[in-house]
Amino acid sequence: MLTNPSVKYRPFPQVDLPDRQWPGRTIDRAPRWLSTDMRDGNQALIDPMDAEKKQRFFDLLVKVGLKEIEVGFPSAGATEFDFISGLVRSGRIPDDVFVQVLTQSRRDLIEKSFESLRGAKQAIVHLYNAVSPAWRRIVFDMSRDEVLEIAITGAKILRDEAAKQPDTEWHFEYSPETFSTAELDFSVEVCASVMDILRPTPDRPLILNLPATVEAATPNIYADQIEWFCRNVPDRDSVVISLHTHNDRGTGVAASELGLLAGADRVEGCLFGNGERTGNVDLVTLALNMYTQGVDPQLDFSDIDSVIGTVTYCNNLPVHPRHPYAGDLVFTAFSGSHQDAIKKGFAAQEARNDEMWDVPYLPIDPKDLGRDYEAVIRVNSQSGKGGVAWVLQQDKGLKLPKRLQAHFSRHVQQLADETSRELNADDIWTAFAQAYRLEGAQPVELTDWDERRAENGDRIFTGTLDMHGKKRSVSGRGNGLLSSVLAAIADANGPALDIQSYSEHAIGQGSRTHAAAYVETTDAHGTVHWGVGIDEDVATASVRAVLSAVNSAGG
Amino acid sequence: MLTNPSVKYRPFPQVDLPDRQWPGRTIDRAPRWLSTDMRDGNQALIDPMDAEKKQRFFDLLVKVGLKEIEVGFPSAGATEFDFISGLVRSGRIPDDVFVQVLTQSRRDLIEKSFESLRGAKQAIVHLYNAVSPAWRRIVFDMSRDEVLEIAITGAKILRDEAAKQPDTEWHFEYSPETFSTAELDFSVEVCASVMDILRPTPDRPLILNLPATVEAATPNIYADQIEWFCRNVPDRDSVVISLHTHNDRGTGVAASELGLLAGADRVEGCLFGNGERTGNVDLVTLALNMYTQGVDPQLDFSDIDSVIGTVTYCNNLPVHPRHPYAGDLVFTAFSGSHQDAIKKGFAAQEARNDEMWDVPYLPIDPKDLGRDYEAVIRVNSQSGKGGVAWVLQQDKGLKLPKRLQAHFSRHVQQLADETSRELNADDIWTAFAQAYRLEGAQPVELTDWDERRAENGDRIFTGTLDMHGKKRSVSGRGNGLLSSVLAAIADANGPALDIQSYSEHAIGQGSRTHAAAYVETTDAHGTVHWGVGIDEDVATASVRAVLSAVNSAGG
Repeated sequence: MLTNPSVKYRPFPQVDLPDRQWPGRTIDRAPRWLSTDMRDGNQALIDPMDAEKKQRFFDLLVKVGLKEIEVGFPSAGATEFDFISGLVRSGRIPDDVFVQVLTQSRRDLIEKSFESLRGAKQAIVHLYNAVSPAWRRIVFDMSRDEVLEIAITGAKILRDEAAKQPDTEWHFEYSPETFSTAELDFSVEVCASVMDILRPTPDRPLILNLPATVEAATPNIYADQIEWFCRNVPDRDSVVISLHTHNDRGTGVAASELGLLAGADRVEGCLFGNGERTGNVDLVTLALNMYTQGVDPQLDFSDIDSVIGTVTYCNNLPVHPRHPYAGDLVFTAFSGSHQDAIKKGFAAQEARNDEMWDVPYLPIDPKDLGRDYEAVIRVNSQSGKGGVAWVLQQDKGLKLPKRLQAHFSRHVQQLADETSRELNADDIWTAFAQAYRLEGAQPVELTDWDERRAENGDRIFTGTLDMHGKKRSVSGRGNGLLSSVLAAIADANGPALDIQSYSEHAIGQGSRTHAAAYVETTDAHGTVHWGVGIDEDVATASVRAVLSAVNSAGG
Repeated sequence: MLTNPSVKYRPFPQVDLPDRQWPGRTIDRAPRWLSTDMRDGNQALIDPMDAEKKQRFFDLLVKVGLKEIEVGFPSAGATEFDFISGLVRSGRIPDDVFVQVLTQSRRDLIEKSFESLRGAKQAIVHLYNAVSPAWRRIVFDMSRDEVLEIAITGAKILRDEAAKQPDTEWHFEYSPETFSTAELDFSVEVCASVMDILRPTPDRPLILNLPATVEAATPNIYADQIEWFCRNVPDRDSVVISLHTHNDRGTGVAASELGLLAGADRVEGCLFGNGERTGNVDLVTLALNMYTQGVDPQLDFSDIDSVIGTVTYCNNLPVHPRHPYAGDLVFTAFSGSHQDAIKKGFAAQEARNDEMWDVPYLPIDPKDLGRDYEAVIRVNSQSGKGGVAWVLQQDKGLKLPKRLQAHFSRHVQQLADETSRELNADDIWTAFAQAYRLEGAQPVELTDWDERRAENGDRIFTGTLDMHGKKRSVSGRGNGLLSSVLAAIADANGPALDIQSYSEHAIGQGSRTHAAAYVETTDAHGTVHWGVGIDEDVATASVRAVLSAVNSAGG
């Protein structure tokens, strides 16, 4: 049994902000995005990326539309430094993309960071130091003043090093690390001191990045912290407020969204939520959440499978099957009622013919992510008739009448219960062909047939059938083709069936069109026998449908 | 490129609730939990659970402490019905556990549901119908009144069926499905009408479950909806407000947490967030989020790996390596600064000796989940000296002096850069043994030695060494053991070294104690050579440390 947590853990304190404004706001435009996949993401990998993978990841980020990319921690080791300086020299950084590097506040590390960026057209140098009481006490054994001094010293070195390389357009980012567990007034004090050194302006603002280094509270608290900070930081129009959330409590996406409502301008994160421990916030989810609200996220995930491919190759970590927007199962309905609703949604969409997306259970059109509808409906023992009908329609072009759907669903349910696994399209087709005698040897089989019209308008059917292994010529008369076939069968001692309903439709278009015919019959005991016929010729499809019912009734 | 989303998607509308109270509240007690793993979770599996897996899952849920368990949809098929009625008859439902079954509002389905529960001591029957405008329009083609009538009719059948089995203690749950995308006043109207039929009281309340069937907005909107509903539903004290969130926008956990702040009493979800599409809300994360705030969640995840084992076996879906609390990587730090902070956190914890948990980067004590600290720090090319030192301490009991940590970290960094993969404890030990000449043939090796004290207090070292393949007797004199060894080496034409620092410590306890000795020396050029010696005997460890430095200096 777990320890009683109240002796070991504390509740996170509230922020005193009774007039908070963020809960009444809506996200109506994309923030500036920074990908830290190559830094915070990379440092959390079991096997960090080599240069080839880093280059591949960088190119992907550019392709997706990232304009700010943290490419590493140049002072962390030779691999990092060499990759970054090589990237800068390679000419592969587009003119509108800013690379960013992270550095602690130490002269040698800052110098090394600037050195790695030598020759860059433009770059962001990101300085950080931890400011929270736990870090001051446990990690540094430092007072507030000493921690403040670290930030100020670092800012001065940034300023001076930048002046030594005047050909590069330098931008700065400062992170009061562990912001979310620090005193808000102290974070503002440290940031204001850094601003005093770097003198940002509205035209050349300083990025102030406010990390939830470890997620430690419900996401509304982070939003309160961000709103409090935005209200109290000096010269708000000279700073860009940046969010950097982690996912320790599974609410990293929510914290960033509520942080944007609270006034932030920029978000740092990783694709599919890679990053230290539980990951950084997932930029893909954040961007597509905006997309589904009609807000252009300025990031392009219209070929999400290729993005997944590159990221999983480089990170060597999977994307979970239930990962929002990206997982293999997130557009899949197995449940019958869900399948039914989705089918109706697609039909309504088609009928409405406007551009609005409004399909039950699908918050986004899979096509917008480069996915097709094939996997939307899949069949297992929890599925109902709707899903099966959908699969037959998608795969075989068959549009089963509603009562036939119900009739066939009993076959499928039984099969699913027996096999206790997902039924794929082949399973369903096999079951359908078996249930309605479409394949394999049957008691009654059609060799050829003809039809003529009697003087009173009746139809006269003549045909050659293989009945229980014997060739027989048969004929019958009725007021239509179907009844004339049934009359011929009855005349040849086959089962006597009455037609209850009939429908047909074309499959496909143009010269390759086939016809499908469905006939519902009852025998002398009132038992229903459905027949299905498929043929290039529409009349032959009808004849085959009748024979299918005859075979179901025992031939 | 993505379509411009503004022509295809709409922003989700705000709730008019300017005096909302939830953002100022804190979660201070556990809600009632319902697991729907065996229903909403199961129906979303590629291969739904068979009876053996269902039984295993049910037993796990009971063990974890769930008191309300939705065991299925009895009218969905023979497998479901047979399992549920078998479970009821098996006597495996503890007296304090309520099983719950789901049913649509149709007489035959409701009857079948009650039938499946025949003989139960107590049970919850959960009735639902979808109420949102999209569902009314697209799926049912029904007016508000018609949808209302479905709910009322279902409630009447519930009432009447319950009366037929008076030996069971019946409870009811009603879900206005698709609540989060429905008109709030209509949801209240439907719920109130159901209440009129079922007549709940404070002693026998009705559960009103308010699903975010598909997550369609930021989680603050869901909280607003819940608070609005709680304020406007009649007889608030006769209903239990239940949350049922999904994770389509990656904010299912946040929506449930904010919904609890907004006044809800109960949460429905699945372990590790299984469920339709992106999953139901993850009960494990929710419970452990409370736990880390000092709130007893009333669910026991103190052996989380065994929970993971059963769930992944039954669901045949993985738990992602970064899944909060449960993933393989969530307590792991690869980054040097993180490792350093964690080490200091553990040390401070030990020194403080109170019961509070306060370790940087670890929001929960891994031991509270039955995990050990072994995987907390792992080493790759992003790691610094702290992590390496930690691994040597954990694995070999070595407490490296700080300057030796720095000296050795250069070796490790180079190795990590070269191999570009994670270094495991063996890799680190091999590199350490190689760097400090602890294994394999060395230029100078110790055969035996003795020491005696001269009259003036000097130490006189005599020993037999294997020097470059030749046995030699050596002796030397110094004011201590180390200097006497060095004198003997210099006398035998070995390198002349000066001692800069020395330390030693015991490894282990009791009769199996060893000693580790560390000596920092400089040669004539001022180059530093560290030596490490490990031996059962503390003095021999010192001698070995000196020889280790001698070998580093070329022997």
